[in-house]
Formats: sequence, C-alpha cells, structure tokens
Amino acid sequence: MPAAPQSTAPIGVFDSGVGGLTVLHELLVALPQEDFLYLGDCARFPYGDRAPAELQAFSRQIADVLLERGAKLIVVACNSATSSALEHLAAYVAEGGHAVDVIGVVGPESNLAVARTRNGRIGVLATPATVASGAYERAVLASDPLVKLTTVACPQLARISQDGAPITEDDVDLARTYCGPLREAGVDTAILGCTHYPFVGALLQRLLGPQVTLITSGTAIARRVQHALSTRELATPRSGEGRYSFLCTGDAAAFVEVGSRFLQLPMAAVEQIELPTEVPA
Amino acid sequence: MPAAPQSTAPIGVFDSGVGGLTVLHELLVALPQEDFLYLGDCARFPYGDRAPAELQAFSRQIADVLLERGAKLIVVACNSATSSALEHLAAYVAEGGHAVDVIGVVGPESNLAVARTRNGRIGVLATPATVASGAYERAVLASDPLVKLTTVACPQLARISQDGAPITEDDVDLARTYCGPLREAGVDTAILGCTHYPFVGALLQRLLGPQVTLITSGTAIARRVQHALSTRELATPRSGEGRYSFLCTGDAAAFVEVGSRFLQLPMAAVEQIELPTEVPA
Repeated sequence: MPAAPQSTAPIGVFDSGVGGLTVLHELLVALPQEDFLYLGDCARFPYGDRAPAELQAFSRQIADVLLERGAKLIVVACNSATSSALEHLAAYVAEGGHAVDVIGVVGPESNLAVARTRNGRIGVLATPATVASGAYERAVLASDPLVKLTTVACPQLARISQDGAPITEDDVDLARTYCGPLREAGVDTAILGCTHYPFVGALLQRLLGPQVTLITSGTAIARRVQHALSTRELATPRSGEGRYSFLCTGDAAAFVEVGSRFLQLPMAAVEQIELPTEVPA
Repeated sequence: MPAAPQSTAPIGVFDSGVGGLTVLHELLVALPQEDFLYLGDCARFPYGDRAPAELQAFSRQIADVLLERGAKLIVVACNSATSSALEHLAAYVAEGGHAVDVIGVVGPESNLAVARTRNGRIGVLATPATVASGAYERAVLASDPLVKLTTVACPQLARISQDGAPITEDDVDLARTYCGPLREAGVDTAILGCTHYPFVGALLQRLLGPQVTLITSGTAIARRVQHALSTRELATPRSGEGRYSFLCTGDAAAFVEVGSRFLQLPMAAVEQIELPTEVPA
C-alpha cells in the first residue's frame, strides 16, 4: 500500500498544455493556502483527436508522476481527458491503493450551474468535440432532469484573445453569434465549457447581459476540491500563501512564455520531464 | 435652458487618459445596453499634480464637450478630478440648467464597501495622492462612522501588469507588502481605489484571501449609474448592445494602442479633439 497522502502535500493538476493554467489560476485565487503541482503534457498536445484508450494511458502515466511526488488530489483540467479518462483514472488511482480523489471538469460546472439557475434554463458554450461528446448534457441532466439546456459549439472562440492580441470587431461578431442561441433561450446561467474561455469572459458577459451568471471550470472545481479535501481531512494547515510549481513534457521555455499569459502569475519553477513514449494499451 | 437629456443619449465618461477605460470596461459589461462616449484628456495627462482650480477648469471644459454631444449622465472616472472637482462640476452642470447627474469614483465604492462588509473592517489600496486626500476615509466614515478603515498607499501598484508584461515574483512581493496591513487588520472588504488596479485584481484576491470581497470603481459606479438613470427615467429603452465611441485630446493612434489593453474590447471610433489651451480661472 502506498503511504497515505499528507495535508501538506500539493494538489496535482494536469492538462495537455497551457489551457489548464486558467483553471490553476482560479484555484490559486480561490485556494491560496494550498500547494499545487501542474503538469503540462505539451509534447503530446493536442489531446483533442486522440482515441480514448490513448488518453486513458496518458492519464495513468501522468497520475503516476503526480502520485510519486505526493499529490493529495488530482485535478484533470482538460476536457478531452475528462471525457475519455476520468472514471478510468479514478479507478486506476483507487486500485493502486491511493486515498486520492480525482476531479475533472464538466461535473463541477454542471453542478454549480444547476445550483445557481433560477429559471431552469442553462447554456453551454464549448468546443465542437466537447459538445459532440454530450458530457455537459449528461452531467447537467443527471443533476436536474428538468433543466432546459442550450448547447452551442464554438469552433473559433478559444483562439480569441488568448495570444494577447486585442479583441477585434470580428471577434465580437463571432462571439455574438455563439451567444445568440443562449439569448434566445433566455438562459440565466451559462457554463464556459472550455479552459480557454475565461480570456473572453468579460466579452461574453457583455453579450449575454448582466443577468446571466457565468460558470467557469476553475471556480467550480475550486469548490469541489475544497469539499473533497475537507472530507478526507486533507486541507492544508497553512494560513499564508502556498507554493506552486510546474512539470512540462515539452520545451520549458516555450511553456513559460505562453503559460504566463494563461496563468497571470509568475511561473518560476518549471521542470522538464519525459514520459514513456511507448504507451501501454 | 438646454434641451432635456434623452434616454437614447450616451453616458459621458472622462479621465486624464486611458486609466478610466477600466471603469468603462466594467460599465460596458454591467450596462451593455447603454451607449457611452469616453473622453481621454491625454494631451494634459497626468492630472495627479495639478492644482484644484486647474482640474475644475479642465472638468468644466470636458463637461461642455460631453453635454454638447447630448450626454445624459457624466462619470468622472479619475481619482484626481473627483477629489478636486466633483462637487464643483456637479454645481456647474446644474447651474447650466442641465438635468444631468455627475458621478465620480470614491463615493460609489465607499457605499458599496459599507454595504458589503460584515465585520466592519474595510481596507483601501490607493495611490499616495489619493490616500493623502483623505477622500475614501471621509466617504466611508460618512456612510458608517463605526467602520474601522485601513488605508495603504501603494506607490508602485499601478504599473504592475498594465503594460501587458507578465507579473514577476518582485511584483508579487510588492503587492504582498501592500496587502500586509489589510491582512493584519482582518478586513473582509477591500476597495481598489485606483482605476489601474483591476489589472492586478486576481493577484490581490490571492494575497488577501477568498474571504475578502474586492470592490472596484467600475462595478460600484455601474450600480450608481443605474440608480441615477432609473430615478430620472433616462435608462435606455434598447435591449441589445449599445454603441461606444471615444474622444481624445492627444494622439489618437497611441490612445488606441494603449487603450485597447485597458478596455479589453475593440476601440473602433476615436475622434481627436482640441480643448481650449487657455484655461479660464
């Protein structure tokens, strides 16, 4: 049996690259006292077109690294890995004898949206792959089968503003098109179902109107993490700010350069690591 | 008597330069249906060291321009102009026979902070000039004399991150120093008393902790504007997004380049204007 996780250990977070750093950003703001260890699997980016078995193998490899470094909880900050591998990974971690929770995207946002809505009409903006997976639909309707869900695939939304370039009129027109069905449906709650969308959160809020509550992955996950740690009595005893550091399977310099824009906080400690190239079936 | 303001007219907003665009950003998000006309007095930037009589004259000139273009309400999105000229300007506008409200910074944030605090301990982060003016102290204590106020002058905070450069470890250390007295005082509400501070809002939230409510100028002003328009029955009848445009006394190209980072929305229409160089006493 592996050693029991420690309350002073870091929370592990992973993604295929820098996208999950917007989730880490919100975790660092919501849970400032905790330590975090982020792994960006940049060498194998993107995860979007990978087969489920492949993403399950990648997730196992990454979890092994995070657990070896003592992670007391694992956050899957990636829509593709969550859709294809969350349950698989949670079972893998549990079978390894680790008393470690595995929390993904989708579930926490869906729960929070159901808790927040007053008129029962919830919108989801997500990538075409995520929409096609039906993951938000299943999660929201599992929480509340009476919710009227409006889901919009937004093929171009993730690229707006994430490179630091100013938002253009064309970007606004594009975002307005995506928001149209949500406005028509009269949603009072909208899930931003992609880790890149916080970059355009203010724009979406303007287009949807101030009466709509936006739910981002990071905020929703932060609450879930807090519950999970509390249940296992694993919340850090620290009261000041925790530390955070990074592992990266690709080029560390490029990871820092792009990543700083996503994290909006300094990225001092980045360690480059290699994962086995031969992926077990 | 000038014509009565129209509900379809724009809300005028002014500042000495681009700083007030963070206020406009929040107004555009909170009141998306309204039109806005922003005047950046870049040619006479900065206002910080100007005499009160000078700022009163500048404010009158700017109000004349905004009123001529039909502004139905004027927002002074600048701490220096608010401290030195708000009451003067409101009287000038009223004496001119305009049924137009003039709303500045300081008052709305102070009210909102008093409304939000539960433990009666409020913090203020602001520039040395604003702290020296005692404006937040007067406004907060006028709303609630029992509040325990902790005010910190932050000489370097406005420059962090506003040029788009990544936040450094030194920046974090600096911000942590400024937050120290607020943490020690156990404030549950903190006023960001400078239009540039929204750039470091997430960093300050992390350093102060999630239990602290941050109050920014824009959010607080948006509520006040909404009340004022509602009282005078001047809220726009429109339900979609309004338009916004810009006047600038300095170089329009430079204003757009820097301003886009502050506004985080497109800045299409900028008109360069000249204000009288001979300032009446």
